[in-house]
Amino acid sequence: MPINFSKPLIWKDGILEILDQRRLPEEVIWISCLTPEDVAIAIKEMAIRGAPAIGVAAGYGVALASNPISAIEVLKNTRPTAKNLFYALDKMKKGIEEKKDLLSLAKSIEAEEEKRCLKIAEYGLSLIKDGSSLLTHCNTGPLATAGIGTALGPILLAKDMGIAIKVFATETRPVRQGSRLTMWELKKADISAILIADTAVGYIMNKGLVDAVFVGADRIVKNGDTANKIGTYQIAVLARFHKIPFYVVAPSSTIDIDCPGGNKIVIEERPKKEVTTFNFDCLNPAFDVTPASLITKIITEDGIFEPQKITEDYRE
Amino acid sequence: MPINFSKPLIWKDGILEILDQRRLPEEVIWISCLTPEDVAIAIKEMAIRGAPAIGVAAGYGVALASNPISAIEVLKNTRPTAKNLFYALDKMKKGIEEKKDLLSLAKSIEAEEEKRCLKIAEYGLSLIKDGSSLLTHCNTGPLATAGIGTALGPILLAKDMGIAIKVFATETRPVRQGSRLTMWELKKADISAILIADTAVGYIMNKGLVDAVFVGADRIVKNGDTANKIGTYQIAVLARFHKIPFYVVAPSSTIDIDCPGGNKIVIEERPKKEVTTFNFDCLNPAFDVTPASLITKIITEDGIFEPQKITEDYRE
Repeated sequence: MPINFSKPLIWKDGILEILDQRRLPEEVIWISCLTPEDVAIAIKEMAIRGAPAIGVAAGYGVALASNPISAIEVLKNTRPTAKNLFYALDKMKKGIEEKKDLLSLAKSIEAEEEKRCLKIAEYGLSLIKDGSSLLTHCNTGPLATAGIGTALGPILLAKDMGIAIKVFATETRPVRQGSRLTMWELKKADISAILIADTAVGYIMNKGLVDAVFVGADRIVKNGDTANKIGTYQIAVLARFHKIPFYVVAPSSTIDIDCPGGNKIVIEERPKKEVTTFNFDCLNPAFDVTPASLITKIITEDGIFEPQKITEDYRE
Repeated sequence: MPINFSKPLIWKDGILEILDQRRLPEEVIWISCLTPEDVAIAIKEMAIRGAPAIGVAAGYGVALASNPISAIEVLKNTRPTAKNLFYALDKMKKGIEEKKDLLSLAKSIEAEEEKRCLKIAEYGLSLIKDGSSLLTHCNTGPLATAGIGTALGPILLAKDMGIAIKVFATETRPVRQGSRLTMWELKKADISAILIADTAVGYIMNKGLVDAVFVGADRIVKNGDTANKIGTYQIAVLARFHKIPFYVVAPSSTIDIDCPGGNKIVIEERPKKEVTTFNFDCLNPAFDVTPASLITKIITEDGIFEPQKITEDYRE
């Protein structure tokens, strides 16, 4: 592992410690999870977030349970959009059926995701030109993955290899993962990073300040359509309009081969209070779907794919 | 005047009372301005904002001065982008040269803007279909104009005439004029209004929820390019991509016939602390420029114009 990074969760003496990302960057507070219900609450309320990290946390959540089968049901009903949650729970379910040691299995899910991230970073690196300016949305670094990150992985690796890069991070309203988490991670890695409001994406693209967009994914379906943090779709449209490449970076655990197209993905509606503290009506979708036609390439730990063909290579 | 609306400023007994819009909607607090400097601070710090309202306030600011010529200089150096500020100050300057009563002149600027808003609303109304859903950005209602509004004017008039409409208001980060001011004004007018994060614009357009976009303007230049609140440009790109009409609604006092194109407009950079309270680097442009080619029509008090031809009709 070439890069030091912080983990969003640590298993220690039979307890899952989860870093409360809602309090970052002001406070570094850990939540001690003793039961699957504790983990479910941490996922639902976004103390831990990021598709791969949610999957890893859910694995440990099952390992904490006295009744692992019912724990799977509890953990399933936390957040509907990220495929990785269901990927990890399916693995745990199979482990229960095969009478495997559930803690070892949870640990292996974490180790796998860490390895995937590193491979992803290496593939993604090949798409980063020296001296280029990249735009990213939401948070896709170590905090989101339990590894070095998905979309942020190639960026961290580029910095480590001495490649000159500049990163624009969107604030990512309503939960501000960009201004709170991505800027924090980029600063720790000593990467030149500039925060912008979500309203300024078109402005910086129009000024020629963005050479490529790197984003993560919560679910990539059969035809290559990709669900990710709300705002991703409009960034893809803006990238297409300004002729800027738009890369989706995700582990294979994000791929949902059984879902035929983006219109079948369940989009989570989050509480209105995330957008407004006033008594106003509000629509607060947590994710949106970017059609494959707006994605330049999808990068997984297995390589760099044409979006429309992504699942052909995963269908064996 | 068919609609009751709140004024963002009131002249009373030799004092200009300015409603502090930074505190809305939680608190209704008025700032008593006794000098041009008081007015300049209120404009610079956005206690009063909105291109037409800024112009009106600046007129009264000059009327408050013991040295009106130096007051013009102070008021000029508050916010660079909105044309209306310079329009009003030019009128006041001419008034000084012609030895006019400056208070009457300031009052006439306010009265003119109020009349313009009403005419604009009537022209804009002709573009609103019964049962349609409109998207607006930032705040362009009474608070922004000293009249019934620019982009919000036709919407308020439509409601008054019993035309069924639904309005999506963007939050408008970083200053949140949408979630604080526009939602407040729409609710007071009993209009069906839904707040969205700025990241959700593409999402609702893609779902077919938006029939037309109505925005205001801070400066419309000779070729029809239009500066407005940061985020306007990307909404125009998104509207074009989704084949949704995009209307710019503004009084003629916003038109800058001497500026040849959008690339010559000075874009104000606002303090970084508006976007982040943490010690992160940040780019915070307050406005962006929408090229005429992305605008469907420009509506002023004189009618509905082709964007590219807007200044031909104002050149006599």
